[in-house]
Amino acid sequence: MFSGAQISLYPMTDDFVGVILGAIEALEPYRPSFRIETDDISTLIVGPPEQLFPAMRDLFVKAAGSGVHCVLAATVSRGCPGEPDDPICAPLGPSAHQLPLAARIDAAVAHVSAANRTGQDVAAQFSLYPLGNGHHMDEIYGCIAFLKQSGVFDRSKNFCTRLRGDAGLVFATLSEAFLRFGAPEGHVALDLKVSANSPSAA
Amino acid sequence: MFSGAQISLYPMTDDFVGVILGAIEALEPYRPSFRIETDDISTLIVGPPEQLFPAMRDLFVKAAGSGVHCVLAATVSRGCPGEPDDPICAPLGPSAHQLPLAARIDAAVAHVSAANRTGQDVAAQFSLYPLGNGHHMDEIYGCIAFLKQSGVFDRSKNFCTRLRGDAGLVFATLSEAFLRFGAPEGHVALDLKVSANSPSAA
Repeated sequence: MFSGAQISLYPMTDDFVGVILGAIEALEPYRPSFRIETDDISTLIVGPPEQLFPAMRDLFVKAAGSGVHCVLAATVSRGCPGEPDDPICAPLGPSAHQLPLAARIDAAVAHVSAANRTGQDVAAQFSLYPLGNGHHMDEIYGCIAFLKQSGVFDRSKNFCTRLRGDAGLVFATLSEAFLRFGAPEGHVALDLKVSANSPSAA
Repeated sequence: MFSGAQISLYPMTDDFVGVILGAIEALEPYRPSFRIETDDISTLIVGPPEQLFPAMRDLFVKAAGSGVHCVLAATVSRGCPGEPDDPICAPLGPSAHQLPLAARIDAAVAHVSAANRTGQDVAAQFSLYPLGNGHHMDEIYGCIAFLKQSGVFDRSKNFCTRLRGDAGLVFATLSEAFLRFGAPEGHVALDLKVSANSPSAA
């Protein structure tokens, strides 16, 4: 199953190039696991589905550590039928989908409570799109039930859900939403924005 | 049918607040048609589906006119089953879905060739998600066939398609993709990034 993300980092400063180049160093530990390609709009990472959100977390926490207002935007995908199967995307562990919806929610909550904190507060909003089956709203409502127990649920907005809290917990929550909901081998996409140091944050 | 977008504008400059406040003036002509709500992550616009992309175009062209590297990111949605029906979202014209796929492609190409140019070059990438039916890949492949004839097709990337050209044509192409593909009353989401003045553009 193909899995990966198109990631963009937006530091709101004249020195955006410096902040981006500094943050990219945080991806070094992931390079052996990922195929990485960059153009002027985004950076593609292709690799194991369990490592996508940890890599984005480390990239974003490094950028946000500069103190400037930064946003990470990403389009994350698994199981896209238009993509070739790729050995680099082999999951690191067993499927997270064997259980019924209620048990998957409990497992996701347990994973998030065990996640390491980073010391960086973030606000995030995202949409989850389970594609190509007739039950997509069941999976979305199941995912929302998990989010409300995650400890970082902020509120629902039109078209998306807001999270808020430590980056370690927020990215762990996003990863659980991506890995555990939607059909096991199905096509799932996730549209994400994460923000730090915003002058207009409440 | 509910329709709207969560829009974020990212000017890569120390004066990002000034650029954003200046650009928001471009939304004034649309205020009577839209409900608009802003928080620290995005601005929601809810209104007629045909006006969503013209409003985003005018906002982005105003921001890009500052000369700084700017990105607009948006999550655009129509027909989301979790949203109430809202009279403000009534389409301005008849449905764009009466025709078979091949005829919809021709109509979309004709609309884009008639679009006004703005003088602002942009690069864009987006993903279209027709949700909740078994034929989502047919509609995606039909949409891709249209994009290749749009005059602003750049290339396919993993998980998304790149467009490049005058903002008038690029936003017209995005609007056609959103309005004409996917089930007529179905749930369609579109994940978009548009970039201008990037120092790393080829």
